[in-house]
Amino acid sequence: MNYIFTNLLGTFVLDEKLTIVDSLLFKSIEEYKNKETSEAKLNQKHDAKPLPKERLPQALLLFKEVKYYQDFYQKNLELTKEGLKQAVNEDNLVMQAIANINELDKISNTMTKRLREWYSLYYPELSEEIENHEKYVQMVLEQDRDSKTFGADLDTCDVEEMKLLAGRITSLYALRKQHELYLQKIMEKYCPNLLELAGATIAARLIELGKGLKHLALLPASTVQLLGAEKALFRHLKTGSRSPKYGVIINHPLIQNAKRDKRGKAARMLADKLSLCARLDFFKGEFKAPDYRIELERKLQ
Amino acid sequence: MNYIFTNLLGTFVLDEKLTIVDSLLFKSIEEYKNKETSEAKLNQKHDAKPLPKERLPQALLLFKEVKYYQDFYQKNLELTKEGLKQAVNEDNLVMQAIANINELDKISNTMTKRLREWYSLYYPELSEEIENHEKYVQMVLEQDRDSKTFGADLDTCDVEEMKLLAGRITSLYALRKQHELYLQKIMEKYCPNLLELAGATIAARLIELGKGLKHLALLPASTVQLLGAEKALFRHLKTGSRSPKYGVIINHPLIQNAKRDKRGKAARMLADKLSLCARLDFFKGEFKAPDYRIELERKLQ
Repeated sequence: MNYIFTNLLGTFVLDEKLTIVDSLLFKSIEEYKNKETSEAKLNQKHDAKPLPKERLPQALLLFKEVKYYQDFYQKNLELTKEGLKQAVNEDNLVMQAIANINELDKISNTMTKRLREWYSLYYPELSEEIENHEKYVQMVLEQDRDSKTFGADLDTCDVEEMKLLAGRITSLYALRKQHELYLQKIMEKYCPNLLELAGATIAARLIELGKGLKHLALLPASTVQLLGAEKALFRHLKTGSRSPKYGVIINHPLIQNAKRDKRGKAARMLADKLSLCARLDFFKGEFKAPDYRIELERKLQ
Repeated sequence: MNYIFTNLLGTFVLDEKLTIVDSLLFKSIEEYKNKETSEAKLNQKHDAKPLPKERLPQALLLFKEVKYYQDFYQKNLELTKEGLKQAVNEDNLVMQAIANINELDKISNTMTKRLREWYSLYYPELSEEIENHEKYVQMVLEQDRDSKTFGADLDTCDVEEMKLLAGRITSLYALRKQHELYLQKIMEKYCPNLLELAGATIAARLIELGKGLKHLALLPASTVQLLGAEKALFRHLKTGSRSPKYGVIINHPLIQNAKRDKRGKAARMLADKLSLCARLDFFKGEFKAPDYRIELERKLQ
């Protein structure tokens, strides 16, 4: 009776005493992953049966020789590398992109505040006139100042320096927009339902807070409803303050547009559907989000 | 006997009963500021003496008429505007520029950390290999990844997104350098001594922490030595922990290069000279900083 046995190095045929009588060595890690092929080949020749578990320790001794070490090390490295490469998936890309977008928001905020303070030495009226940060930066670049201004008459080189800053801020705003388009593009393939119902930013935040689409899909809807409201939730549990009704989904139009006293209900219904969307997306199900949206809109009227 | 009296509107000649007998009205705020000229002119004609203080209240009643209001308002506005315009000086420019440089440092730090995390999905080895942030960003843009990498094989569009971020960070590093040159240029005129002895960054921080060159010039040297170490100082006063030996001047080469046990002494001597520099600069004195530097270097050897 012969036994057949496969490890990282190849497929081996062993006899009753567990000495190697035949073998097919793997040239690449791919061959190891298709070990059924080489096992079938050898089986045709030898009619062997799989090595019983209790004889495994004995068989392994065969490979405790120095000549195999280098080969084992190499194959193991390749296998690990492949594992690592495949461990990176869309979750990571989505999470990095949304984290970056959030940081860019904070950064362009800080920079615009600095620009407002600085440029107001020269043209203080503009900052009072224009509240929107992005618009303000644009005006600094495009509009000459009013001759009636109370600002100081600075040298051109001083003003140029401020405009340089404004230029950089503008390009950060553009980068943020570009990142959002990119995020949208990944999610169209990866989680179309979630994207459709939640929009790019909220969907990405949910994936980030849920620690990946898989984990998000497995969370109960009531948890999805509160993702991003952890602080308020723990305060509620600790001090008995009012329990939070929504986390990041608060920015969703369906909740923003609901009447104040209906928002809790709207949040619960939306979270139910978002949870379904995450499951559909993770298990590669149908594209049902538009139906969900219509259903929600009807019920919330 | 005639009296002469000047206000924002013009110079007036009044008779004994304080009725206006002659006047020169100002066309601009400039004429008000050179009121001696118009007073001299009218004096030639009328041989008047200045209005005595005790008759001022009575004279002012003359101008309590509605026809003067608009003119007073206008002239006052102009005067205020000029005051505001002149209130902006190099102190403000230096403080804004250095505050911006400090913010840019923090921002490019945050962004590079994000890039390291993100790009490491694709090429993790690069981040381990290159510690310097600026150099790292440059390598992301310029170097292809090693084919032996453990990183995931991402789509070009994913990697492009990371490179966009790297490009923006590079331009922030460039902006920071440009701002530093600008700072140097202002300070060459405004505080050459301080700039020469302290270098652009430390000099600007001292002006920022001292709330302007004037105020800095009036501070005792022992305070200059500790500017930027307020937290440690108050901790020392409150808890009796060791007193701080230096604030922002700790980064000065003379202190960095001093032996550890001589640093306190070096800081005191440097602060003495910096304080002198601030005074020389504020009172537009000579350019003595190079002598001070040589003196310090000799004494600290």
